[in-house]
Amino acid sequence: MHHVPENQWYVIALTREITDGLLARTVCGHDIVCYRVPDGRVVALRDRCPHRRYPLSRGRLEGESLVCGYHGFSFDCEGRCISVPGQELVPPRSDVATYPIVEQGMWTWVWIGDRSPGAIRPPATPWIAGDPHWSAVTGMAPIDCRFELLVDNLLDLSHETYLHRANIGTPEVAATPVHTRIDRENSSVLLSRHMEGVECPPFYARTTGLASPIDRWQDIEYFAPSYYQLNVRIAPAGRPPDVSGADPDAFHLKILYGLTPSSADRTYDFWAVCRDFSLDDEEVSATLDAMQQKIVIEDVDALNILERRIAQDTDGTEAVAGIDRGALAARRMIAALTGAKGDAEFEIDAEGIVRARP
Amino acid sequence: MHHVPENQWYVIALTREITDGLLARTVCGHDIVCYRVPDGRVVALRDRCPHRRYPLSRGRLEGESLVCGYHGFSFDCEGRCISVPGQELVPPRSDVATYPIVEQGMWTWVWIGDRSPGAIRPPATPWIAGDPHWSAVTGMAPIDCRFELLVDNLLDLSHETYLHRANIGTPEVAATPVHTRIDRENSSVLLSRHMEGVECPPFYARTTGLASPIDRWQDIEYFAPSYYQLNVRIAPAGRPPDVSGADPDAFHLKILYGLTPSSADRTYDFWAVCRDFSLDDEEVSATLDAMQQKIVIEDVDALNILERRIAQDTDGTEAVAGIDRGALAARRMIAALTGAKGDAEFEIDAEGIVRARP
Amino acid sequence: MHHVPENQWYVIALTREITDGLLARTVCGHDIVCYRVPDGRVVALRDRCPHRRYPLSRGRLEGESLVCGYHGFSFDCEGRCISVPGQELVPPRSDVATYPIVEQGMWTWVWIGDRSPGAIRPPATPWIAGDPHWSAVTGMAPIDCRFELLVDNLLDLSHETYLHRANIGTPEVAATPVHTRIDRENSSVLLSRHMEGVECPPFYARTTGLASPIDRWQDIEYFAPSYYQLNVRIAPAGRPPDVSGADPDAFHLKILYGLTPSSADRTYDFWAVCRDFSLDDEEVSATLDAMQQKIVIEDVDALNILERRIAQDTDGTEAVAGIDRGALAARRMIAALTGAKGDAEFEIDAEGIVRARP
Repeated sequence: MHHVPENQWYVIALTREITDGLLARTVCGHDIVCYRVPDGRVVALRDRCPHRRYPLSRGRLEGESLVCGYHGFSFDCEGRCISVPGQELVPPRSDVATYPIVEQGMWTWVWIGDRSPGAIRPPATPWIAGDPHWSAVTGMAPIDCRFELLVDNLLDLSHETYLHRANIGTPEVAATPVHTRIDRENSSVLLSRHMEGVECPPFYARTTGLASPIDRWQDIEYFAPSYYQLNVRIAPAGRPPDVSGADPDAFHLKILYGLTPSSADRTYDFWAVCRDFSLDDEEVSATLDAMQQKIVIEDVDALNILERRIAQDTDGTEAVAGIDRGALAARRMIAALTGAKGDAEFEIDAEGIVRARP
Repeated sequence: MHHVPENQWYVIALTREITDGLLARTVCGHDIVCYRVPDGRVVALRDRCPHRRYPLSRGRLEGESLVCGYHGFSFDCEGRCISVPGQELVPPRSDVATYPIVEQGMWTWVWIGDRSPGAIRPPATPWIAGDPHWSAVTGMAPIDCRFELLVDNLLDLSHETYLHRANIGTPEVAATPVHTRIDRENSSVLLSRHMEGVECPPFYARTTGLASPIDRWQDIEYFAPSYYQLNVRIAPAGRPPDVSGADPDAFHLKILYGLTPSSADRTYDFWAVCRDFSLDDEEVSATLDAMQQKIVIEDVDALNILERRIAQDTDGTEAVAGIDRGALAARRMIAALTGAKGDAEFEIDAEGIVRARP
Repeated sequence: MHHVPENQWYVIALTREITDGLLARTVCGHDIVCYRVPDGRVVALRDRCPHRRYPLSRGRLEGESLVCGYHGFSFDCEGRCISVPGQELVPPRSDVATYPIVEQGMWTWVWIGDRSPGAIRPPATPWIAGDPHWSAVTGMAPIDCRFELLVDNLLDLSHETYLHRANIGTPEVAATPVHTRIDRENSSVLLSRHMEGVECPPFYARTTGLASPIDRWQDIEYFAPSYYQLNVRIAPAGRPPDVSGADPDAFHLKILYGLTPSSADRTYDFWAVCRDFSLDDEEVSATLDAMQQKIVIEDVDALNILERRIAQDTDGTEAVAGIDRGALAARRMIAALTGAKGDAEFEIDAEGIVRARP
């Protein structure tokens, strides 16, 4: 896999997906099987039996042991081969690699890399991890596109106006300029778009009860490579937070994305929509879930198409608009994190045109 | 794309396909979007937004402007980028290429090439373009084969006897020798097969009312690379045209093909069946349409299979029969038009065997 | 095709598949069409018309002649081109290759190679070829895997315990060590596993009426590259054959496999289950047929998955257990038969780890 940063945390699964069954995922090209053992811990092993390379995810659990479904090699939670049928001894080099795992509420993260994570933790996401002032829905969609296309997509929300017209995109999103701040030290990009006195799209109208005009803020925090947070503030027009920061008339949402490269041209798009209102209202949950899924599928369809086009594109140039500052900075951060600064896949020429390197 | 002549007119669409919707076609490897603007003109643009390379055919028309469906870049009929959301200025090099278009009745042609067509026009096809003495049906089938296989197919109609036995192929087609004339100056091949006192196949029996025996003439004119015309004369046996050329007892058809390379291994097979009889008889139109579609699908099925075989064939030799003179001349003309005379994909050895070059 | 031995007999078809229709098979990368002519002989020709490379299997038989479905070139049973429509003479080099064929009861074998088979015959399989003391059912499944994976599979039946638990695999199969004998001179591997006083799996319980405990013997004879025979003896526990070899209390089965490489990553898995009991009992036949098909499909599913994994595996190492001695010897024999001794795809390092060569 080119240009995918390793020694990083990536979301590998929705926590509810990890049960006493065997879940196969591929993260940064690593085939991984994960499962929950009786004491509740999550185990993640390389999904490849060292004997005949059969996927261990096709085997079965016996207590804490994972038994290969082809010839019965068995492995404990540390990946050690503990028995081979028909013989006393276990052959040399028949252990499998394990992967560090952290569960944080609704999402479970895996560490991919040759170094230990040490004290590094995944990004904090309290809104999906027990904070009593928040309620959330979550899901995942696989996309047949390279990771960078999803980064591009999320860092330029002007596309809401065109690709997601039906429930979230109003003309004002594309028309309102954004303020972009690049924080190279933290490999972070901050984008801010504050729309005042604008139309309330169905996504918010149907869940908050607000009617147009509203004030609608989009404050994005992207931490390269794998975590994206859209902080949304929706309020009746003209009622900003007071000087103390109190904001009683507003509704707040945090729309989180875990961006996980699978293979060179596949990506997992994990998402969560968190809100600080109607916490126990299941109809609001169901509405947000359904509308967000529709938005994600619109992105999936577009990015699947775009990947096929880009894979065949012999030209490689891209024109740059002002809105692209954030996405271009993100691409550079990802390239830097892969240590590929010198041979990133694109460059920007004197006229400001993005150009694929030959 | 190897060996596809550029600076040529190719049929891009049936004229009826071009509406105020967006039609995506790929011709000679060029992705093209075409549509009809309110004043009736046909516009053809490169189907690739210069911003993020998204297909413009996934956008929508606003009057004469095409708006990209991803981030809203807008283009006029000359391909100029006329607006970018959220900013006043349009970035440099954000225009898209346009393609010359000529509508000729039922077919619309596109010019592919780096030169201007100048005074060059597509082949004249009055029989599908308003001539009151003719009536026509038309259609298109995509084939997953390289362009040359369709050329080969049409230049050797002896295959009618085997591949299209049910409605057009009688034993006499394959059994009757053809007269072949090669006109290198005009990149044209002329093939003539006159069958006298032969069986009338269903294709003609059901539409003309004639019964066996008939005289059946097939006079082919192929103009490399993209246009093929089969002139058919069907008459009761023994009633040739008189010396003045008058031919009152005969039925005439012109079966036209527009051969359009799409990508290296895909081809569009445009066809029209024109007749000078029963001009307003819709049942005859429907019968010819249905039978021609059946014939075309038989060709599609065979060529799809042949392409897969040839793509894997490590041998590359082909035996040559007399009937192949026309097809071999056509292959050479196509190679010459691509400027590839010296490295055509085939050669003919001392024994007359066609051999793929290594 | 790498590492597939030629100058060998391979099963090309179940004999019942070869009729007066045209059967297309690909063996060791050779496209072959086979059919039965009116006098009952089986003919096998290269499935490629020398004219335009169209598959002859899309043509039709006229008596003993095969007529190409594209332009009507006709071939006799010796592959000679006997007529070309529209001309008197047949072009040079328009014959097609023939393949030696031997029918042996339920299976028909083809010889692939540049040498003549001479006196070499396919392995003797009287149990599917008229021996009155035996009754058999037979079938075939195509697998999307390289040939070697099926060899590996059959030479290590410990996988029955894990992959075929429902009807043939009991824990004792994997737990009982095998005795392995390598016969390099005959390119043969002999594996023997005698289980005493064990559970009777459904495959045998439902067809012999025996109940646990039983004695269950598995004696494998593999003759590289293409023939595998599993000799099964099932008897009430503690009743071995007497010193004369008489074995009146036992049930015997011979489970035959014809392993036929198709292309580099496709294999035909021919099988036959032969028995010396209930010879005329159609219910027993139907039960064995259904259970064997289920087992074969379990293998097909596993090997399809394994092939996709191995095709992408950049590691290539495999750990070796004692049980693998037979399979490793078989791999070496296959490599030797291809004359590829020096560059087999794997090697075994000092620690006994199998490693793909770079």
